[in-house]
Amino acid sequence: MSRRHVLILAGGRGERFWPWSRPERPKQLLPLASGGRTLLSATFQRALRLTDRSRILVMTAMDLREACQRECPGAVVLGEPVGRNTAPAIAAAAAWIADEDPFAVLPADHAIEDTDAFAADFERAFERAERDRVLVTFGIRAVGAETNFGYLERGAKVADRAYRVARFTEKPDRTRAAEWTASGEYLWNSGMFVWRRGVFFDALEATRPALASALRGLEAGGAEAFSNALRDVFPGLESISVDYAVLEKAPNVVLIEAAFDWDDLGSWSAWARRQPHDPRGNVLFGDAIAVDCDRCVLVGDGGTAAAMGLRDMVVVSSGGATLACRLEDSDRVREVSEAARGRVRA
Amino acid sequence: MSRRHVLILAGGRGERFWPWSRPERPKQLLPLASGGRTLLSATFQRALRLTDRSRILVMTAMDLREACQRECPGAVVLGEPVGRNTAPAIAAAAAWIADEDPFAVLPADHAIEDTDAFAADFERAFERAERDRVLVTFGIRAVGAETNFGYLERGAKVADRAYRVARFTEKPDRTRAAEWTASGEYLWNSGMFVWRRGVFFDALEATRPALASALRGLEAGGAEAFSNALRDVFPGLESISVDYAVLEKAPNVVLIEAAFDWDDLGSWSAWARRQPHDPRGNVLFGDAIAVDCDRCVLVGDGGTAAAMGLRDMVVVSSGGATLACRLEDSDRVREVSEAARGRVRA
Repeated sequence: MSRRHVLILAGGRGERFWPWSRPERPKQLLPLASGGRTLLSATFQRALRLTDRSRILVMTAMDLREACQRECPGAVVLGEPVGRNTAPAIAAAAAWIADEDPFAVLPADHAIEDTDAFAADFERAFERAERDRVLVTFGIRAVGAETNFGYLERGAKVADRAYRVARFTEKPDRTRAAEWTASGEYLWNSGMFVWRRGVFFDALEATRPALASALRGLEAGGAEAFSNALRDVFPGLESISVDYAVLEKAPNVVLIEAAFDWDDLGSWSAWARRQPHDPRGNVLFGDAIAVDCDRCVLVGDGGTAAAMGLRDMVVVSSGGATLACRLEDSDRVREVSEAARGRVRA
Repeated sequence: MSRRHVLILAGGRGERFWPWSRPERPKQLLPLASGGRTLLSATFQRALRLTDRSRILVMTAMDLREACQRECPGAVVLGEPVGRNTAPAIAAAAAWIADEDPFAVLPADHAIEDTDAFAADFERAFERAERDRVLVTFGIRAVGAETNFGYLERGAKVADRAYRVARFTEKPDRTRAAEWTASGEYLWNSGMFVWRRGVFFDALEATRPALASALRGLEAGGAEAFSNALRDVFPGLESISVDYAVLEKAPNVVLIEAAFDWDDLGSWSAWARRQPHDPRGNVLFGDAIAVDCDRCVLVGDGGTAAAMGLRDMVVVSSGGATLACRLEDSDRVREVSEAARGRVRA
């Protein structure tokens, strides 16, 4: 019988939560999940519903390995020497897995509360991947005209809440996002997948043969030796997402419409929607003081964040830096973190 | 010939610049003056235009004596064990001065740029105080309907830019402030005075005999011994301003209409008006980053203050705390600093 694995992708640097997130403590290591857990720890807990901890792989940046290991005790934590997007990360981690074994891919920075529905849906996905030579992806029923996600267009129905994928799309503009959401034929692309190692590598070989051949035969050894071996291989690899390299081109993609809730917490406003609010609609996290504020998000982590007389604002104080912006601008935080990085370099 | 003295009042805790100002570094010790000098240092430099450094007295809180001495080398720095407002502070410092000597009183937290006009006006004030038994006060031509200052109503003219004072008034409401400013008969009460020691104590004795008798005979000794002596006397004294205790009641008050500029920098917005602005009207001080901001005040002192997409806001990061508020609310900062203090105690 095949053995199921889970690969957690924890390589992101997540600048959208600056100054709370920093290169050395990116989004997946922040206590953004319910109960004040880190997103990575919450993802690990969900992965434990799917397999044993020894078969959970975490792929992260070399310098974040220790921090990730603390959040995922008993898991195998692998380090990338440089970031090359999701296709090389998934292909490299797949070297740990026997060719006929299936594995799930879970980004480390998603918020999912309904763990029972999550486990049931992945059980279905594993069963299908074990049986058929398909690439299973999860689509999320669109609950708003989001412009920050890619979308999946549903094709022919193959089972209850399961469809062929007619088309992968990039992030749409607002008009198109509204049309797609209204049509009911489009789902958000969650970036979560289940497939057999061999099926994945065959699909990769068809579209990106150089990438597939560089990683398919990689010898595993221990996590330390393996991470060191990646130092030689990774810098020369193409930086490309698994959606673009494989899923948009493969003919055998099946989507399961998720029965569980999902959010990628892509911004302060997305995170704040899930947090407890005070009577005036403010989210106060850590050392935060609101005087006469409404619908504000105040975060003080290693510093006091105080606001007075504000509406619909974000004020974050962390690690000796502060950001203030309107909640509706929280998608644009990267502009500030880039400016801040520029200053440090200057 | 009498010897002129200058008393600098540096006892305030100045919470309006929180979190930049703290009890251990109040407003007068912040680099709010032009050229990045502290307000106290700038006041000391002005005092040096009026007399020798050995005849400059600085009255401050006991725990701020060292910091004040660094800003005022060669001055005599005295410490109050507790704050009792301006009347006791002035009366105590006056114990250092011979009865017929005149002294000027300068608050440590005012902004004045035209030092030549300042010196010339104080020369006139000293001459008048040396000649007549009068209490000389400085009025500032009102340039806006300010509600944060007390006002002086002009009486009979006694010389060029010199008048009897018809009336001292408390801070007015906006309507009255506008009326007074338009009338041209009212001036802002600057809180700067010149008088002979004996004339001051005689006036104090007429209105507050207990206060006068407690301090008039105090033996000076050294600054250290004197400050220690105040420990016994000060706690029992009435807390009262010199305006209320003496000037509002005395019949012999003369005002000089100042020829120099003046501001008490009572808020972030008042300070920002005098600072250099970037092309979009922002004031950036220290470690500050503005992305797409207009007319904002960003201060980073021991921390980065970053703002994005904001208009007419204050964002201050200092000493591990951050404040964000609208510029028009900067008069209300005390509400936040009090809330912050409450938290620390809790």
